Amino acid sequence: MYFSLLPFLFAALPFASANPRVPTIPKNATLPKHFGILLYNGFTELDVYGPLGVLQGLYAQFLHPNLHLSIISKNIMPVSSVPGLRGDFGESVVVTSTFGSILAQNGTVPGKGPLEVLLVPGGAGSRNELEEEVTFIKAIYPKLKHIMSVCTGSTLLARSGILDGRKATTNKKAWAWATSTGPKVDWVHTARWVPDGNIWTSSGVSAGIDLTYAWVGNVYGEDVADYIAQAIEYKRWYNATDDPFAAVWNEPEP
Amino acid sequence: MYFSLLPFLFAALPFASANPRVPTIPKNATLPKHFGILLYNGFTELDVYGPLGVLQGLYAQFLHPNLHLSIISKNIMPVSSVPGLRGDFGESVVVTSTFGSILAQNGTVPGKGPLEVLLVPGGAGSRNELEEEVTFIKAIYPKLKHIMSVCTGSTLLARSGILDGRKATTNKKAWAWATSTGPKVDWVHTARWVPDGNIWTSSGVSAGIDLTYAWVGNVYGEDVADYIAQAIEYKRWYNATDDPFAAVWNEPEP
Repeated sequence: MYFSLLPFLFAALPFASANPRVPTIPKNATLPKHFGILLYNGFTELDVYGPLGVLQGLYAQFLHPNLHLSIISKNIMPVSSVPGLRGDFGESVVVTSTFGSILAQNGTVPGKGPLEVLLVPGGAGSRNELEEEVTFIKAIYPKLKHIMSVCTGSTLLARSGILDGRKATTNKKAWAWATSTGPKVDWVHTARWVPDGNIWTSSGVSAGIDLTYAWVGNVYGEDVADYIAQAIEYKRWYNATDDPFAAVWNEPEP
Repeated sequence: MYFSLLPFLFAALPFASANPRVPTIPKNATLPKHFGILLYNGFTELDVYGPLGVLQGLYAQFLHPNLHLSIISKNIMPVSSVPGLRGDFGESVVVTSTFGSILAQNGTVPGKGPLEVLLVPGGAGSRNELEEEVTFIKAIYPKLKHIMSVCTGSTLLARSGILDGRKATTNKKAWAWATSTGPKVDWVHTARWVPDGNIWTSSGVSAGIDLTYAWVGNVYGEDVADYIAQAIEYKRWYNATDDPFAAVWNEPEP
């Protein structure tokens, strides 16, 4: 009787000598398996790699080798994070699929299956017209399970029309310009991230990390999202409306 | 008299209608201008792009076009973040300089000047021998102003010998293996990041972001680091010893 209580005592100790339990993801054929990242010149890297860090945790800890990633752009040339190619303070990423090749195959990439989740980053380059990017989003969205945008990536979603009548948020420092791209969007100012159906948008740059944990928690389970956060040493933000930066940037910038 | 108090009253209001003041960086010829990122197959992307997000804030808000970035690897082939190229859940980055070309030019890259700050990421690929990477670190370190590592990137520094007798930290989940690579290093377990002279090391993945803010604060000014954090909507960690993950991962993993 005395000994049988020991495991419970250990579990209650603040420094119990055991690492966190690895949660399991239920086998579910409807869970997304193929993610895409839409890139254009002048994207902000952290808008991509913050979320990708979380998704790679999902891949490495749970779903290897059954997750796939496509790096998607208008053509097959590497995409630079330096806006307008002024200077060299950035990097260039190799593209794996083009808008045209995916649409020509009805939203599918050979070997990876149908594209199910698309991530759209922001960045200085989002100030450009980006007509091909916006057209692609409009065409692919009906085939997707989910779409996520970080920072001013939401302006591409807004320009494609898919945010009309929906709630969304965007970068707080660039609020005036960013929201002007979607006059029919229900923009939410005080929000770290906003889910509306299968469209998830976040505030500026770093908020994309919190958006992705929340999305993984929603789709794969909160214990899965928590485990990834512990593995890559991140303190999650759990409250979508906890947004200190809404009050920091309260004067419109052009 | 009454009116002259108005600016002070506004400044004291919690929601004063003014954006944060942009701090200035004193003109100082000794401040670093050329950053390098050392890449190898199987690097963790967030180890690179968390810090790079902060440095790009420094570039975009303050020092454009006078900062330079080199993406450095053992050869000129794009570097994949997928360890051992198993699967496709990652991206490939274009390399701009090789170890050999930089050492052949005495630590300099044409058009960018001497390499002054080197960032070394961790990742599953750091479990490989990485002999050329370790040799490069040993050769270039005496020419650098600063070197930073994130996560198990510190194992490359340890293997090069430059951490011998120094304080450093590393990934908490991989602590047992990572610290075994540097028996003469003074490893600090409870630390988000550790500065020792011009060597700054961080704990796992996400901690690299906090390391970089602290480093920018130290080198360019705390007000500069704070401004970048507000611009890219990040809540800084100010305390290098605030490390909740030291207690989370307390059972050695191989």
